[in-house]
Amino acid sequence: MNEPKPTKTVDQGLGMSGLPSLSQRERIGQAFTELDTPCLVVSQLQLQSNIEALQAFVSAHGLKLRPHAKSHKCPELAKLQIAAGAVGICCQKVSEAEAFAASGIGEILIANEVVGAAKLTRLVQLHKRCESLKGQLIVCVDSLKAAEEMNQALEQAATSSDLPPLSIYLEINVGQNRCGMEAGEPAAKLAQRIAATMPRLRLIGLQAYHGTAQHLRSIQERKAVVNQVCEKVNQTLRAFDSLGMGRPEVISGGGSGSVGLDARTNVFTEVQAGSYVFMDVDYMRNEWDASVQPAFAKSLFVLTSVMSQPTSHRAVVDAGLKALSVDSGLPELQNAPGMVYAKANDEHGLIELKAAADGGLPEPEALLGQKLWLIPGHCDPTVNLHDELVVIDDDQVVDTWPILARGRLF
Amino acid sequence: MNEPKPTKTVDQGLGMSGLPSLSQRERIGQAFTELDTPCLVVSQLQLQSNIEALQAFVSAHGLKLRPHAKSHKCPELAKLQIAAGAVGICCQKVSEAEAFAASGIGEILIANEVVGAAKLTRLVQLHKRCESLKGQLIVCVDSLKAAEEMNQALEQAATSSDLPPLSIYLEINVGQNRCGMEAGEPAAKLAQRIAATMPRLRLIGLQAYHGTAQHLRSIQERKAVVNQVCEKVNQTLRAFDSLGMGRPEVISGGGSGSVGLDARTNVFTEVQAGSYVFMDVDYMRNEWDASVQPAFAKSLFVLTSVMSQPTSHRAVVDAGLKALSVDSGLPELQNAPGMVYAKANDEHGLIELKAAADGGLPEPEALLGQKLWLIPGHCDPTVNLHDELVVIDDDQVVDTWPILARGRLF
Repeated sequence: MNEPKPTKTVDQGLGMSGLPSLSQRERIGQAFTELDTPCLVVSQLQLQSNIEALQAFVSAHGLKLRPHAKSHKCPELAKLQIAAGAVGICCQKVSEAEAFAASGIGEILIANEVVGAAKLTRLVQLHKRCESLKGQLIVCVDSLKAAEEMNQALEQAATSSDLPPLSIYLEINVGQNRCGMEAGEPAAKLAQRIAATMPRLRLIGLQAYHGTAQHLRSIQERKAVVNQVCEKVNQTLRAFDSLGMGRPEVISGGGSGSVGLDARTNVFTEVQAGSYVFMDVDYMRNEWDASVQPAFAKSLFVLTSVMSQPTSHRAVVDAGLKALSVDSGLPELQNAPGMVYAKANDEHGLIELKAAADGGLPEPEALLGQKLWLIPGHCDPTVNLHDELVVIDDDQVVDTWPILARGRLF
Repeated sequence: MNEPKPTKTVDQGLGMSGLPSLSQRERIGQAFTELDTPCLVVSQLQLQSNIEALQAFVSAHGLKLRPHAKSHKCPELAKLQIAAGAVGICCQKVSEAEAFAASGIGEILIANEVVGAAKLTRLVQLHKRCESLKGQLIVCVDSLKAAEEMNQALEQAATSSDLPPLSIYLEINVGQNRCGMEAGEPAAKLAQRIAATMPRLRLIGLQAYHGTAQHLRSIQERKAVVNQVCEKVNQTLRAFDSLGMGRPEVISGGGSGSVGLDARTNVFTEVQAGSYVFMDVDYMRNEWDASVQPAFAKSLFVLTSVMSQPTSHRAVVDAGLKALSVDSGLPELQNAPGMVYAKANDEHGLIELKAAADGGLPEPEALLGQKLWLIPGHCDPTVNLHDELVVIDDDQVVDTWPILARGRLF
């Protein structure tokens, strides 16, 4: 990773003459202080440590790890996860998955529902692409109507080819009350209907993901929800038995907040953690216990610069709402005693300056141009604001990775 | 605007073979129901009405309109504003301004501070570009140190050319306590220093923008702040007089929330409104009075689709935190009685279904695939999540415009 690879730069490639690039690839080999800001930075050491720690933990418990790529949207990073032992990746959107397939990754679960003619057309093409990569595309389904439309789209596309059936996970409502067919008999009956009438779909698993559980603060709260999730899964498996149907092979779910519990349930066969590669302020507010699951390190930062410091009590940085998502709270400053990120405007971040234990307040203008490290409040939507991830090792820029699936919303 | 123009499509142009485009340009001429979702849509009629209403109002009061392009980041839209009479545009970032200059717009105010070597290098190139377009680049300055560094960067670049001085507005702190030199004598002294020692800078105006004032709910509250802003400007102008310096020609500031008051102050010569082209839920919560300023129409929407509807009480749409910024509150549904957008996850929006006055609740799955119109909570950061603006007229797609400055954070 230390030698610059001939990766294409992200110049937004809009094909307009004279539009200067935003890529900082030319700064590889330089100190981070040379970077233009605001930019998204990952620490190579912490990132690799997180990837290896979760893989080792999940493997030791006999499960498969299928990391969620919605967190990073970055094929280079996905390839590190796969190299470490991941069986493939998750995506949330068809067009997001397209970016990974275009980068050679063919083992993809779209851990979400796919509805509508435009998306089904893309889905069929993506299925073909994954097959050509000797991989497997998997999609979630939670309703009869959506399954029928998907089966029909595949049938229309398959007339002139020998495209194999599309693998699906049946998503069940594990208590989050978002997507998902009701667990138990309703889910099993949908599975039965699919098996009987939709030859282009092949049900291989259950999607049993509980998003809100990840952010419950205490381990006890998370444990209670994980137990409920497992009960919903078991209820569904018993309903499969009652209908005389074979149980699906894969039980997929879990996330960065609950993975230590998920792995011990003897219910899940595959976990979908995503944020563990980066962490963020919100996740750091969770209770962590090293006896339950590996400790993950903060690896993701928005590097920002002071652009104005009119007084000793106030500085303004160049990272606001367009560089950081504040949906789960404001960012925090790393290694900046006496400084608090107090407010985010569109393009401004307000930093309150307080006397640090070891000194007084800075003179006005003294901090101008100084670079500061912000830990995002919520990693996933923050990553989605940036086109490039700058990789650093010991204060040096060692690589830049395109966030290729950034903004791929369809 | 009704005939498709040969604008380049936004395919993220990453140069990777096999990465399908996200542009919906091929859907021009079709009904909006054919659009893939989530996507950002503007109503041509409402947009044009907003552009003309503010221009007429500002012109009638003898001021210049320099709309803020940070709201739309879209050169096609800026060109409509200029065609209607705007003297140029504002941007917040150098790299954002580059996108407009690359599209042929050379009259640009960067209404923000520009600090650091990387940005100053870009700034000098942008200055040259705007000159070559027979336009004028203007930048804000609020500190001696930043002014000196800017002057130096220009001197180094000008040795081999006859580049004219860079025009600047001195930003003063009008009470928002964000950027800005203290009003009155400190500001006038900085101006004096610039005039005396920095030949590459030419101070032509004062930047007197108050962001928070725009979102104060009552007109009375906004009026009180506008009066304070004017007092800060007048205090500064008197300090210029005391030092025997000519007063700057331009007093620039104001926004969509306060423009009706700004235009009546006899202080401002130029207003910088941005959000008026689109409006959003937050701005709609302001008190508006047609006797004070024109009424602006909601023109901006995120079109979304129902991807799951497990029960009669709950639907899930495909627009969450990555399609909508929720920093100023959740989006609202347009023309959807009985439906409330209740929660945003990364890629999911939860819609609560309640019995509408004229009917009962929908059967489960009945809404699957249905398209819904969301009014964003906050337009600027929402626009920044999308690569393309789809223009509709009477339910038909009539154009697509690249959001060329999306993500240009430097």
